[in-house]
Amino acid sequence: MAADIDEQPAGYERLLSTDHAAPIARVAAAVAERRPRHVVFTARGTSDHAALYGTYLTEIRLGLPAGLASPSAITLFGARPDFSDALVVAVSQSGGSPDLTEVLRVARDAGALTLAVTNAPDSPLTQAAELSVDIAAGHERAVAATKTYTAELLALLLLVEGIRAGDGALPAEERHALAALPELAARTLADPTPAQLAPRYRFAAHLVTTGRGYAYPTAREAALKLMETSYLPALAFSGADLLHGPLAMTAPDVPVLAVVGGGPGGRSMVDVLPRLGERRADVVVIGSAEVEAATRLAVPAVDERYAPLLDILPLQRLALALALARGEDPDAPRGLKKVTATM
Amino acid sequence: MAADIDEQPAGYERLLSTDHAAPIARVAAAVAERRPRHVVFTARGTSDHAALYGTYLTEIRLGLPAGLASPSAITLFGARPDFSDALVVAVSQSGGSPDLTEVLRVARDAGALTLAVTNAPDSPLTQAAELSVDIAAGHERAVAATKTYTAELLALLLLVEGIRAGDGALPAEERHALAALPELAARTLADPTPAQLAPRYRFAAHLVTTGRGYAYPTAREAALKLMETSYLPALAFSGADLLHGPLAMTAPDVPVLAVVGGGPGGRSMVDVLPRLGERRADVVVIGSAEVEAATRLAVPAVDERYAPLLDILPLQRLALALALARGEDPDAPRGLKKVTATM
Repeated sequence: MAADIDEQPAGYERLLSTDHAAPIARVAAAVAERRPRHVVFTARGTSDHAALYGTYLTEIRLGLPAGLASPSAITLFGARPDFSDALVVAVSQSGGSPDLTEVLRVARDAGALTLAVTNAPDSPLTQAAELSVDIAAGHERAVAATKTYTAELLALLLLVEGIRAGDGALPAEERHALAALPELAARTLADPTPAQLAPRYRFAAHLVTTGRGYAYPTAREAALKLMETSYLPALAFSGADLLHGPLAMTAPDVPVLAVVGGGPGGRSMVDVLPRLGERRADVVVIGSAEVEAATRLAVPAVDERYAPLLDILPLQRLALALALARGEDPDAPRGLKKVTATM
Repeated sequence: MAADIDEQPAGYERLLSTDHAAPIARVAAAVAERRPRHVVFTARGTSDHAALYGTYLTEIRLGLPAGLASPSAITLFGARPDFSDALVVAVSQSGGSPDLTEVLRVARDAGALTLAVTNAPDSPLTQAAELSVDIAAGHERAVAATKTYTAELLALLLLVEGIRAGDGALPAEERHALAALPELAARTLADPTPAQLAPRYRFAAHLVTTGRGYAYPTAREAALKLMETSYLPALAFSGADLLHGPLAMTAPDVPVLAVVGGGPGGRSMVDVLPRLGERRADVVVIGSAEVEAATRLAVPAVDERYAPLLDILPLQRLALALALARGEDPDAPRGLKKVTATM
């Protein structure tokens, strides 16, 4: 898992290289030409958080309605939605989950433009889709997905910005800003704070993660990593949903990991942090925002769209360090397999 | 909270009466006439779980793609999605959340057909929408929503089946089956098991809820009720997502509440329950399914679409009884207000 985590800067560099970015640009141009009216994402587990990031990008950057489809409506209940105006995107590192393949098959039959985003170009999911994107993350050794998650994020970013451009070619300014990401990721991973912070949670009974907008997928993914590797129950809430109920649960003995960047999503968290303060919750702030916090995992400031590619890195390292601190083996989480087949 | 819970059978009867069902049928007919191509739901907290139920109904019963929109893309990031083919449904008991009102305003400007489902016919949300449905649940005294949740479910069911019928008028068979619900709800609430089960969780550190398909919103809502009233961290997973990672977290000291009815969603849980058994999790099964379980909260067998209207009842009573067993005041959850204003 440590090796997978450390490969992420190189993974960003690879995916941004012409070899891998050019095929994504061609897929983006093909999507733009078909002019879908709305976008439906479908995914499971970690990839579901990348898909969630995709819905924010789609709504904000493309001005298209976007949602996450539950495979079970189709695979279990036989729903056959009319997808004729839709782009249906399945996100899966293995490309091996039969339920997602079935969703793409049904969507394609119903007239959707279908796209598979995977780390497995020869997988059943890729074969079921009309278009496909290879996230090119290389073999992932650990069961808990790390480098495939961030590669999915970056591939979706390149895809959406390519669709926005129309011909798949990103504006020079965007290309320039993206080119800095590998170095920023390496710098983020060099920070020793996550490992130093881990002992603090050694005896925590559970944990809350929160964030808004582009930071919400990061909060969700951090919670899943902590559950998969440390078996620490971790509850993820959007900053707004936290105020609609679960806030009652926070208390001085409940650690809160709040992902707070710059931009509108981060700024909106200034309403949430004081409410957590009133409940005397133990808050650690992750991200680039200059907010008051007893403890911080600082991350370089970037465009809010890029922040998920950096903010998750210290959280992956925290999950890994905490698993080790709790005497667990993060490379072999109990009860899990790398490819999970569900229908 | 106890009084609100007990009023649910009467609430079903009221909403099914011509006085309240007829206006919903008229709204359904108006929606059917406009032929939306897809449906976008938006909601917060408990109402988000009713909206999730709405997405399953929409996909399965109407054959239309459906998704949950995050208000923040619109309210914080200024997204202006092209909603011209969409029905946009906001669900909120109070109708007072500014972010949902803003989403409907933006959606209506963008050409969407907009619909507010609320317990407050004069609320800002209702005023912002072109169409509205009154769930007629009466004043809810407790902060934790119970009777407004089930009234939202029933209103969405009547709405979707009315749209399916085309003219809003439900087939006689459906009307007949629905008419039995108040009596079945009363019988479900008369079961003393939930209160007897509560002491079992007195010292639980956290809890997992799970279900698939129509039962997944029930699992989510049960988790929220437990968090709001007992401050017990409760993690909700679809049965499929549970196998994609969080299963690692389950252990003999982790109670699992599994919602398992008849129908395809319930049948698919037969893959999940043995995996929980392998991890020696402490599983209580809620619902009508005839599956092997050490402890059960039995609920009368009904069509799987109706099951969410019954399955949640013992879980609400369990949340209430557990809050009392833990010395908490379920009528005044710490840190919460009845109307939560977020943007």
